[in-house]
Amino acid sequence: MRLAFEANGIVTLTSDFRTADGYVGAMKGVMLHIAPDLRLHDIAHDVPPQDVAHGAGTLATACRWFPRGSVHLAVVDPGVGTERAAVVVVGGEHVFVGPDNGLLIDAATATARAVQPERARESLRAWRIDEHQHLPPRRSSTFHGRDVFAPTAAALAAGLISPEEVGPTVELVELPSDPAPAPIGGHLGATIVRVDGFGNLVTNLSAWQLSAWSRGRAVVVRLPDGGTLPVAKTFGDVASGSPVALVGSEDRLEVAVRDGSAREVLGLRRGTRLQVEVDSRRNGGAG
Amino acid sequence: MRLAFEANGIVTLTSDFRTADGYVGAMKGVMLHIAPDLRLHDIAHDVPPQDVAHGAGTLATACRWFPRGSVHLAVVDPGVGTERAAVVVVGGEHVFVGPDNGLLIDAATATARAVQPERARESLRAWRIDEHQHLPPRRSSTFHGRDVFAPTAAALAAGLISPEEVGPTVELVELPSDPAPAPIGGHLGATIVRVDGFGNLVTNLSAWQLSAWSRGRAVVVRLPDGGTLPVAKTFGDVASGSPVALVGSEDRLEVAVRDGSAREVLGLRRGTRLQVEVDSRRNGGAG
Amino acid sequence: MRLAFEANGIVTLTSDFRTADGYVGAMKGVMLHIAPDLRLHDIAHDVPPQDVAHGAGTLATACRWFPRGSVHLAVVDPGVGTERAAVVVVGGEHVFVGPDNGLLIDAATATARAVQPERARESLRAWRIDEHQHLPPRRSSTFHGRDVFAPTAAALAAGLISPEEVGPTVELVELPSDPAPAPIGGHLGATIVRVDGFGNLVTNLSAWQLSAWSRGRAVVVRLPDGGTLPVAKTFGDVASGSPVALVGSEDRLEVAVRDGSAREVLGLRRGTRLQVEVDSRRNGGAG
Repeated sequence: MRLAFEANGIVTLTSDFRTADGYVGAMKGVMLHIAPDLRLHDIAHDVPPQDVAHGAGTLATACRWFPRGSVHLAVVDPGVGTERAAVVVVGGEHVFVGPDNGLLIDAATATARAVQPERARESLRAWRIDEHQHLPPRRSSTFHGRDVFAPTAAALAAGLISPEEVGPTVELVELPSDPAPAPIGGHLGATIVRVDGFGNLVTNLSAWQLSAWSRGRAVVVRLPDGGTLPVAKTFGDVASGSPVALVGSEDRLEVAVRDGSAREVLGLRRGTRLQVEVDSRRNGGAG
Repeated sequence: MRLAFEANGIVTLTSDFRTADGYVGAMKGVMLHIAPDLRLHDIAHDVPPQDVAHGAGTLATACRWFPRGSVHLAVVDPGVGTERAAVVVVGGEHVFVGPDNGLLIDAATATARAVQPERARESLRAWRIDEHQHLPPRRSSTFHGRDVFAPTAAALAAGLISPEEVGPTVELVELPSDPAPAPIGGHLGATIVRVDGFGNLVTNLSAWQLSAWSRGRAVVVRLPDGGTLPVAKTFGDVASGSPVALVGSEDRLEVAVRDGSAREVLGLRRGTRLQVEVDSRRNGGAG
Repeated sequence: MRLAFEANGIVTLTSDFRTADGYVGAMKGVMLHIAPDLRLHDIAHDVPPQDVAHGAGTLATACRWFPRGSVHLAVVDPGVGTERAAVVVVGGEHVFVGPDNGLLIDAATATARAVQPERARESLRAWRIDEHQHLPPRRSSTFHGRDVFAPTAAALAAGLISPEEVGPTVELVELPSDPAPAPIGGHLGATIVRVDGFGNLVTNLSAWQLSAWSRGRAVVVRLPDGGTLPVAKTFGDVASGSPVALVGSEDRLEVAVRDGSAREVLGLRRGTRLQVEVDSRRNGGAG
C-alpha cells in the first residue's frame, strides 16, 4: 500500500518550551540545517509546562486547518529519556511527530476526519522512530525535540524520507480520557477539558450532542455551586462581566465571561463536571 | 478609480490570543490552506486581553515599517459576534484586516502618511467584509479571526481578491481619543497613552509639539505626585534605577526608568496626565 | 583575505522585547523592507528584560544548530544610546549583529567551534557598525534594534553588503565571567549560569570536565544547604517531584526536578556555587 502523503514543505511547531531560552531556536536550526527552505510556522510555545492534555487540545484546535501535506512537530514531553517511544503519526495526509504520550492523537484524528468522517481514529497509522539517516549519531537523553523529533520532522517535510522508513509500526498510547458527556437522571453531564488563555472553559460536549439531547428545548448549565447559566448565541447576548454558556469556536459547549475570565470569576478548572438541564421556567408552559 | 494595492505575499499577525492555545495556529492554517506560499510574520500575540487601544498602538508601532503591498491581520475583538463590522482598510498601499472597533486606524494612518503626509487619516478607504468566495459557508460567532479575517487576509495577500470585492464601503468606528496635548496655564499637558513591556510610559506628545512649545528652553516633566523629571537625550544620561523623561523611538515623549520599569517605580498608568514645564532654575537667568 | 561568509537568506531574531508591543514587528518590517524574501525565524523574545547573560545563553543554545550562512540578530541592550558600540561578529561562517556588550560572544564561539575546534574564541572577527548605505539617515537613541541592527542584519543576509563594509574592526567587550569550574580541596566547584523556563539550573561544568575529574567514580552534587543529589542519566531515574543532577542537552551538569521546577523547589539562582563530590558510600568499599 502506498501511503497518501506528499509533503508541502510546511512544518508547524508546538511546545511547552516558552520563548526565553534557545530550545525552540535549536529545533528550528536543526530543521533548517537539513532543509533550509522549509517554511516553519509557530503554533504555540506557551503550553503549560508538561501539560500533555493541554498541548493535545492546542494541536487539535490548530492543525486541522493547515493544508494536507503539512508536518506538525509537537513536544510536550515529561517522559523524555524514559521508555516512552518517539513516533510519527499519519492522519488524513497530515504527519505528526512527537512523543508517544497521547499528545498527537486528537489532532491526527481531526485531520483524518476531514478525509474520512467515519472511523477517523481507527484510520491513523503510527511508526516508532527508531533509526534513519537524518538522526544525529549522538542524542541527549533530555532533549529529544532537538535530537529526534526535529530532524525527523524536517526530513519528512522535505520529502527526504517517508513515514514508513523511521521504524516499526506501533499502537499509540492514549491519554486517560475524561468522562464522556452522558445523560444522567434527566440531565446531561459534561466535563471541562480545557481552559484557554482568555479563561474560557471548554467542555467535551459537542454542539451536536447538545442539540440531539435538548431537541429544541431551552437549556441552562448548572454550575457546581448550584447556580445556572443561560445558553446564549454569543458573548454579546449578556452584559459585560457576566458569565454565559455558549457553543464556541470548536463547536463545543463553553462557559465564558464577557470581557473577562470565566476561570477567575467562577473559579472552575479542568476536570470540573457541569450539568446541562432543561430550563423549566422557559419550557414549563410553552414547551 | 484603480486602487493602488499590489500584494507582496506578506501577512503580519497581531492578536491578544497568546500562544498557549491553538487560536493563532488555526488562523495560520486557514491562510496557508488558501495560499501555502504566503509569508506569515508574527508581530505580537500578547496584546493584553481585549485591550483595543494597546493593540492599536502595537500595530501603529510595527506596520509602517513593512514594505508596501503587505497585509496586516489584527484581532483584538471584544465585540466578536455582536453588530460590530469586519473590515478591510487600505492606507498607503498597505491593507489591514480586522474588526471595526478602532484597532486599525492609527496603523493605517501611519502607512498612509508615508505616501501623503497631509490628510493621511482622510485618505483611508474601508470596506465591510460581507461575502466573498474565500469565506467558509459556516462561521462561528466567537472566532472571526479564523472564520472571517484570516481567509480575507489570505485571499488579499495572494491577490485572489481585491479590497473592493469584500463588501460595501464603510465609515470606520474611532476609538475614544485621549485628550490631545495642549498648553494650559503656561504648561503643556500630555497623556500616557501606552505602557510597553519594559514598563516605559509613552505619551501622546510628539517631539515636534514639544520643541515647538519649548522653543529651545530646558523643560521638565511634572508627575502627579508633584515631583519633576529632567528631559534627557537617552537612558544613559541618568543613573541606573533613576526615572527619566526622553523622546523615545516613536518620536514621542516617554517616561522611563533606566534598567527598570517606570510603571512599577512610579506607579503610573495609561490615561495619567503629565505636565511639561519650563525648567525655571535652568532658564531663570540665562533663558 | 576573503571572508568566508555566503548568506543563505535566513535571519534569526532574539530579544527581550516580549510580544505585546510592536518592537519585534518593527524590526521585521525594516528587514523585509530591505529584502522582502528574507526568511525570518524567531528564536526568543522573552529573554528576561536587560539580562544580557541570559540572552547570551539563549543564543549559544540555539544559533549553532542553524546552517552556515545564517545571520543572527540579537537585542538585549540596556546600554542603548550610550557609548557601547553596535557590532557585526563573524564566527564559523555565521554572522551575529547586536550590541557590543558580551551578548554575542558565546554563540559566535560555538558556531566557530564547528569549523575549528581549537582556539574558536580567538578566531572571531568583529566590526563596529559605523555607517553603510542601508542605515536610515536619522536614528533614535533608544531603539537601535530597529534603526541599526535590523537594517544591518537584513543587508548582510540579503548579500547587499559584507561584514567588512560596516565599519572598522573592533575588540569585543566580554561579559564578566562566572568562576570557572575548578577542583578545590578534593571537590569540584561549579556555578549555576542559567535558569531556564522549566526552572532547570544549568551549570558551567561540562560533561567532559566532569568525567575527566571523576574518572569513573560515582559522584554527588552538594547543595548550599548541605544536602546532596545523585547524578542520574535522565529525569526518569528519579520519582516525580524529586530533584536530580544530570548532564543536560547542552552537555553540561544541570540540576532539575522531575515534573517540576528546581528553581522553585530548591530556591537556587544564577551565580549559586555547587560542589561535585565523590560519593563515599558508593565508592567507599567497592571503588
